[in-house]
Amino acid sequence: MNAAINRQVRLAARPVGMPKANDFSLAEEAVPEPRHGQALVRVLSLSLDPYMRGRMSDAKSYAAPVGIGDVMTGGAVGEVVRSETGGLKEGDLVEGMFGWQEYALCTRGSARVLPDSRFPPSYALGILGMPGATAYFGLLEVGRPRPGDTVVVSAASGAVGAAVGQIAKIGGCRVVGTVGSDEKAAYITDDLGFDAAINYRTANDLGAALDEACPDGIDVYFDNVGGPMTDAVMQRLAFKARVVVCGCIHHYNLTEPYLGPSHLRHILVNRARVEGFLVLDWLERYPEAFARLTAWLDDGSMTYREHVIEGLENAPEGLGMLFEGRNFGKLVVKVAER
Amino acid sequence: MNAAINRQVRLAARPVGMPKANDFSLAEEAVPEPRHGQALVRVLSLSLDPYMRGRMSDAKSYAAPVGIGDVMTGGAVGEVVRSETGGLKEGDLVEGMFGWQEYALCTRGSARVLPDSRFPPSYALGILGMPGATAYFGLLEVGRPRPGDTVVVSAASGAVGAAVGQIAKIGGCRVVGTVGSDEKAAYITDDLGFDAAINYRTANDLGAALDEACPDGIDVYFDNVGGPMTDAVMQRLAFKARVVVCGCIHHYNLTEPYLGPSHLRHILVNRARVEGFLVLDWLERYPEAFARLTAWLDDGSMTYREHVIEGLENAPEGLGMLFEGRNFGKLVVKVAER
Repeated sequence: MNAAINRQVRLAARPVGMPKANDFSLAEEAVPEPRHGQALVRVLSLSLDPYMRGRMSDAKSYAAPVGIGDVMTGGAVGEVVRSETGGLKEGDLVEGMFGWQEYALCTRGSARVLPDSRFPPSYALGILGMPGATAYFGLLEVGRPRPGDTVVVSAASGAVGAAVGQIAKIGGCRVVGTVGSDEKAAYITDDLGFDAAINYRTANDLGAALDEACPDGIDVYFDNVGGPMTDAVMQRLAFKARVVVCGCIHHYNLTEPYLGPSHLRHILVNRARVEGFLVLDWLERYPEAFARLTAWLDDGSMTYREHVIEGLENAPEGLGMLFEGRNFGKLVVKVAER
Repeated sequence: MNAAINRQVRLAARPVGMPKANDFSLAEEAVPEPRHGQALVRVLSLSLDPYMRGRMSDAKSYAAPVGIGDVMTGGAVGEVVRSETGGLKEGDLVEGMFGWQEYALCTRGSARVLPDSRFPPSYALGILGMPGATAYFGLLEVGRPRPGDTVVVSAASGAVGAAVGQIAKIGGCRVVGTVGSDEKAAYITDDLGFDAAINYRTANDLGAALDEACPDGIDVYFDNVGGPMTDAVMQRLAFKARVVVCGCIHHYNLTEPYLGPSHLRHILVNRARVEGFLVLDWLERYPEAFARLTAWLDDGSMTYREHVIEGLENAPEGLGMLFEGRNFGKLVVKVAER
């Protein structure tokens, strides 16, 4: 092995509000030696995802926070360069929580070996990975759309939102996406086949925009953002509506709790169901999601877009782009050539 | 028939905020004549319920509002005094939406004939009527408590809340009720067997009070009130918690939307389910609820308390008591002796 140095991005401080450059530090250490049962992975691409903001905070969440001084957590794909376990061999492409670093140790149990595929390995961080499974199970198992339903998805050009909308279209729904630019609005309607798009940055009145796009009310809301968009959607729920609470990125970087109008009366009157969703609860069924998503990519009924940032050291800036909605497509950081 | 005059309370104006005396008017008209297929009912007791506030407003709800000048809507029990339908006979005790008046017409399909019972007919407005069915189906079908769960119910000494808590106790749960006086707190713990009570009017810190009463978090929240209590409960949901949105009486008389902290993150992190409930959706299964509730009253595993107001003309004031929490037990208006 040639590289003796493992560059890392570590969490230097708990961010207050939006994460800043000095909440992270660059570090170098020796590339670790795999012990029996382990393999050494050379990281090719990192995933940047909204959930990472939660890991940087010590507020209660579904997973423990990253410790100060620890390597920043995150999914990645890489290539096995040395193996001391029978389950992994040199050259295997693997996906796992390898963190923001150039090299990581893993075990057979902590890595997913990627199948041969005509798609780039980085797809395993997006449409053929956690975000794709999030869209698939969140929409189908919690949102439970029926043909003819009106489905609204927020952050609709993002990794999860774009998949949600396309799966809903395959399922015969009317699909409306909310996005943060006219370019993204054109993308989801022209390229992804959404029926309508709302640019929340330029809409004068979110409620009026929703009324126009959803004249029969909203049967399923797949929510990635929270905030004023969710407040407007909740007032337009249809009878027996389902709201998939998948994320609330609007809230993640606020230093005070988000205050808004109560949703209770709308939930009550419509007998709506609002349910939190975490994809990790569906881990055992990931293969089903990946098989279907692969088939839909293969037959052209889905398309997928990546936003690639070059260089491990630029991951913190990429996370800032994500939280400000400046990315266009699934954000990945290219760490090394295959 | 002796009485030629039917006294009524009509809706005179749409209330702004809390309903006031001059939102209603007293009126008299001739007692109506039943036509073929109808029966004439002499009303004995009226029910006062939180949902009535919604009927007085023209905001979207699950039922059309009462028209200005119309008899105020509401459930009542009465005695059939003349019948022109084979399905009802003189002397039958019936329950139905007879409204705030001394006499009403009904059909066999719009009235429930009460079974012989050792309980007063007015129980058919409470524990053996819509509020009892609300508690039964809302808790068991939407809340889905399991033995050992911690169940919190708001407005716990009210018609619905008291039944919810007692059913949850029968089901092996730890039960905590929130109430508005120390007398009600003593009632739900000492007489109804709740494990703990929180007086929201005197608790300095609702969150701390909930933490003390629910050290393992809240598995089921049966919500009748909304407002700050719900905001505090939402921050203490247990994993896979269920929230039954049955009412939000705290909001009904506000002239501005209730603003509070978003619940989304708590719903997400705990994969909680928040679901609106309306008992009318369960109409076909009411006999099941009434049979079980009757059995629990008979064997002493439930008790029931009424707060009786004398005189039809005092119904508006009674509704004000309800919205201010000044009632103690299920509110009924006694209109006539049997």
